[in-house]
Amino acid sequence: MSEVVISDPLLAEGLARISEEIDGAFDALLPVPDDQRARLVEAMRYAAIGGGKRLRPLLLTAVAEMFGVVREAAIRAAIAIESIHVYSLIHDDLPCMDDDALRHGKPTVHLAYDEATAVLAGDSLLAFAFEVLGDPAVSADPFTRIELVQALAHASGAQGMAGGQMMDIVAENSEFDLQTITRLQQLKTGALLGAAVEMGAILGRIPPEGRTHLRGYARDIGLAFQIADDLIDHEGDVLLAGKAVGKDAAAGKQTFVSLLGAERAREQARMLVEQAIGHLAQHGKEADLLRAVARYIVERKH
Amino acid sequence: MSEVVISDPLLAEGLARISEEIDGAFDALLPVPDDQRARLVEAMRYAAIGGGKRLRPLLLTAVAEMFGVVREAAIRAAIAIESIHVYSLIHDDLPCMDDDALRHGKPTVHLAYDEATAVLAGDSLLAFAFEVLGDPAVSADPFTRIELVQALAHASGAQGMAGGQMMDIVAENSEFDLQTITRLQQLKTGALLGAAVEMGAILGRIPPEGRTHLRGYARDIGLAFQIADDLIDHEGDVLLAGKAVGKDAAAGKQTFVSLLGAERAREQARMLVEQAIGHLAQHGKEADLLRAVARYIVERKH
Repeated sequence: MSEVVISDPLLAEGLARISEEIDGAFDALLPVPDDQRARLVEAMRYAAIGGGKRLRPLLLTAVAEMFGVVREAAIRAAIAIESIHVYSLIHDDLPCMDDDALRHGKPTVHLAYDEATAVLAGDSLLAFAFEVLGDPAVSADPFTRIELVQALAHASGAQGMAGGQMMDIVAENSEFDLQTITRLQQLKTGALLGAAVEMGAILGRIPPEGRTHLRGYARDIGLAFQIADDLIDHEGDVLLAGKAVGKDAAAGKQTFVSLLGAERAREQARMLVEQAIGHLAQHGKEADLLRAVARYIVERKH
Repeated sequence: MSEVVISDPLLAEGLARISEEIDGAFDALLPVPDDQRARLVEAMRYAAIGGGKRLRPLLLTAVAEMFGVVREAAIRAAIAIESIHVYSLIHDDLPCMDDDALRHGKPTVHLAYDEATAVLAGDSLLAFAFEVLGDPAVSADPFTRIELVQALAHASGAQGMAGGQMMDIVAENSEFDLQTITRLQQLKTGALLGAAVEMGAILGRIPPEGRTHLRGYARDIGLAFQIADDLIDHEGDVLLAGKAVGKDAAAGKQTFVSLLGAERAREQARMLVEQAIGHLAQHGKEADLLRAVARYIVERKH
């Protein structure tokens, strides 16, 4: 499915590496039990293994690496945040939500299994995320682990991602202005991208006041990411996206593209990427992967 | 709805007290935001406030009190476990799951709101549980907090409650024997009741080896609870249960009653309660509330 050539060798290597590591870790951490729960864990594995850009794990591990965190610990934390992302996609795709048939180029969980299993698989991945963060393999320091729990729980719930999803549902029957759409997307997509960066810094034991510029970076790429998504949906190529496209306009939803027009939206995304990179000025070569991720976000075609 | 007179004054007072405290804490911890997320938090509050026996909070706080834990901290942890219980009821009631119209005598969340909101409200309560446990109000000690996270996450996910729910779905199209039904119920209901007791002991800083008898107590009352539920479903009185009854037989599900017969099931539940109380032999009057809870579990009519 992913036919886009990534020109930056650092990014290409980073994406390939994180994909392999995340697939391997999900495989190891989600063994299929030898009883009637097998179907549930199989559905979790179906959704979690072998798909997606692994953008949140890439961000988390890139930040952790800047601060010298052991790779294995960072991958564990990355599994937690990716579990939250995957659960949100399973539930988003349900008939009562977006009713999507395709995800990462294959049938969505409720079609490959059934709706009840999809609901439970999403729920189980949500709980699994916090089980993973509770484990000493993430960090021997319980304070670091509990800080990770707080950051991820806050970003996932009603004040974060789920709150953004609710706004998105309300948006289908309302006229939202640019400010409200921005707020919606900062929650729906931005909260978890922000948590990825934050969790990398927590693992690196960077105190909250030392994370301000990283938060700025995360906020800017989060918004750029969503504008780019709206542009992809607008210009839609179903093969590249690996999911149904052009749905926003069909649903009558306000997007950055409908509010700004494609040209201004594209400019805005580019500006945000430059601003994101600007937040990294105090860092040297060790932040090059984060810079490459920021550029990739607007250049990607899916 | 609750017209059953509770004869034990200690239990009657404990149930009344915990109901009021849990309602008050949910009310304080779930303020409705002044934007489009309001509907989500309203749905969470609709499900969380003003209903249910609060059995898990009662167990958790009763154990915590035995070990001198500050009441406010225990209530916070109780809010976390009750949030997991409430989320599981919201998702269980969905059309693709049990398709129930009534819960605690009022319309289920997907009927009072809509299915998408019900899915999100459940998800948000799940994340909220871990956000609450991450907060220092539960315990100043990060190790205690992370132990609580581990216990609750494990009890909620594919290896605990959600795994039991999956087995329950598979059970509709299978012939389960008594051993498998027992395993199913130990996961579906028992895991969270066990976590309630375990979390009380964690708050009390009782090391794992000192929790063995409490685990035995929890295991026995968990099974007794489910047998009692099957008996209530079998003898069904919709007014008392506050939900649809007689559904298990209609769905062709194996239950303790269908496998053992009502008389032997009732005997088995009574025997388990005696066994549960036996596990508390090393404790004096401070365990009287736990003893009363064990008896209540088989005597209740809803």
